[in-house]
Amino acid sequence: MGGDGAPEIVVSGAAIARERQPELKFLIYGDEKRLKPLIDEQPLLTDCVEIRHTDEAVQNEDKPSMALRNGRKSSMWLAIEAVKNGEAAGVVSAGNTGALMAMAKFCLRTLPGIDRPAICSLFPTLRGESCMLDLGANVECDANNLVQFAVMGEVFVRTVLGIREPTIGLLNVGVEEMKGKDILKQAASILRTSSLPIEFAGFVEGDDIAKGTVDVVVTDGFTGNVALKTAEGTSRLVSAYTREAFRHSLFARIGYLLARRALEKAKGRVDPRKYNGAVFVGLNGIAVKSHGGTDSIGFANAIGVAADMVSHGFMETMKIDLESFDPARDTKAAAQ
Amino acid sequence: MGGDGAPEIVVSGAAIARERQPELKFLIYGDEKRLKPLIDEQPLLTDCVEIRHTDEAVQNEDKPSMALRNGRKSSMWLAIEAVKNGEAAGVVSAGNTGALMAMAKFCLRTLPGIDRPAICSLFPTLRGESCMLDLGANVECDANNLVQFAVMGEVFVRTVLGIREPTIGLLNVGVEEMKGKDILKQAASILRTSSLPIEFAGFVEGDDIAKGTVDVVVTDGFTGNVALKTAEGTSRLVSAYTREAFRHSLFARIGYLLARRALEKAKGRVDPRKYNGAVFVGLNGIAVKSHGGTDSIGFANAIGVAADMVSHGFMETMKIDLESFDPARDTKAAAQ
Repeated sequence: MGGDGAPEIVVSGAAIARERQPELKFLIYGDEKRLKPLIDEQPLLTDCVEIRHTDEAVQNEDKPSMALRNGRKSSMWLAIEAVKNGEAAGVVSAGNTGALMAMAKFCLRTLPGIDRPAICSLFPTLRGESCMLDLGANVECDANNLVQFAVMGEVFVRTVLGIREPTIGLLNVGVEEMKGKDILKQAASILRTSSLPIEFAGFVEGDDIAKGTVDVVVTDGFTGNVALKTAEGTSRLVSAYTREAFRHSLFARIGYLLARRALEKAKGRVDPRKYNGAVFVGLNGIAVKSHGGTDSIGFANAIGVAADMVSHGFMETMKIDLESFDPARDTKAAAQ
Repeated sequence: MGGDGAPEIVVSGAAIARERQPELKFLIYGDEKRLKPLIDEQPLLTDCVEIRHTDEAVQNEDKPSMALRNGRKSSMWLAIEAVKNGEAAGVVSAGNTGALMAMAKFCLRTLPGIDRPAICSLFPTLRGESCMLDLGANVECDANNLVQFAVMGEVFVRTVLGIREPTIGLLNVGVEEMKGKDILKQAASILRTSSLPIEFAGFVEGDDIAKGTVDVVVTDGFTGNVALKTAEGTSRLVSAYTREAFRHSLFARIGYLLARRALEKAKGRVDPRKYNGAVFVGLNGIAVKSHGGTDSIGFANAIGVAADMVSHGFMETMKIDLESFDPARDTKAAAQ
């Protein structure tokens, strides 16, 4: 029931996701009176959806703490609980991000070895795709948080993108060892001496994000959120300038008509809907946040991210890797 | 003598700048044997250049502290000293950023009321042009630093861009008052209650940078540096995708040929050379840093930024505004 277009885009998004992956099944939490007619319109959903009725829904403007306290009958809470109970393999929501994180953290708990979950997403680069985390769950982080983000991001791209030995970079204002904030130098030192089989590539800078210099960009939630939104804004700016250019002259207009198909393909490569689906990593269960303003294609992609994590064994790999991960030992090794 | 293409691009950049603004005169510091023949090649420079010979030059890999201690005969130091002595109205360098900042700070001193100078630059937006600071001088900042950046950025766009009542935004991870880091909330509170005639628009997010939501984006040097480089990287990524699209088919190739002129114009709008010239604000003198990898057109633009600051009375306006600016009083007012 969350997001600007719910429940319509959620139901039509589920239908698109089902078309792509016929093995998918859905538990849809929310107002049955509104959901039933929408689902009845989708022939693909007749045999794979169960509606779980509830009158309550978390609102966009609800404070996370309030939602957590008073929202135990909300569609959001019930959907998360289905993951905890093992009824669902993962939860996808386009609702209130803060409330979803607070509820998921409380209900699913963080994994052993992880102090704080992070928000993680794929993005397009000159080399293909990379992932960045944290994108906003933790405005302030210490060195150990960043090290844990590195471990989680590594598992994410290794399982979901199938990259054998992903490279990890710490986002900084220079690539030299002496540059930047103290917590970054500490985190780098831990990652360098860590016993983990992690390919730590050192510091990277803002322009390395789009270059795809590394497979995983690790940063605090403040910087990650600013970088992600700056990239989105810049992408729209360059596209707007290009669109304007095509209106510039008759020649340019004809040129546009001839190149339209190819250009639309290029535009699709940076389409925010394509990268919809931010993953909450570090929890004892799969939770994916869809952008609140997306459409059914975007929502289907967010479902796809959750489905990929399930089918590629993200949770299982994560748990195995964390067993061999001893943050206390690694911190000590770095200090020596 | 600094930057990848010095002294060639510096001299040819000066010639381009002179062509644009015939009132410009130059003191060029460096190796006379290398400078003389380059200047002799430029008819526009014969009557407006004086070479000040020195054998020494700060190197790109020099540590700022070392450059400051041992570089008092370097071209960089001597050029800054010319501003201090009143021989030059401003200094422009494509050399080592850290050394330039350290030397400029030491030699020119900061203005009364300013604790730390910042690096500031214009950038293109959907609405025109805005400025952002700090872009990397101060990796960690407190609330007062941010308030001072706001004051300096306001004067910069008011004088150089001629915007009457510039709007100021603090870069954050959400626009709501309760969002983000504590120092941002403190800075916002000071700016809201401040006695300064500043148009404080509250918090802005990463995508507001390219939107041009405000005329001045205020942030710490870490976040500003990451945002700037992320924007540069994303702009290159979108351009690369578009270029690839035009090679996609014969139709697209012909389309490109027809639209080429208009597209080159659009590309020019985000050309990093156009926005070359990062200003060190908060110093008792004008100092502009050119990108080390730029060409003569980029260097000419950096000279243009310094010249604009001089002709629009940036330093004079700054000094007048700072006289009415009492950070201690404003901090106190915010606390009440």
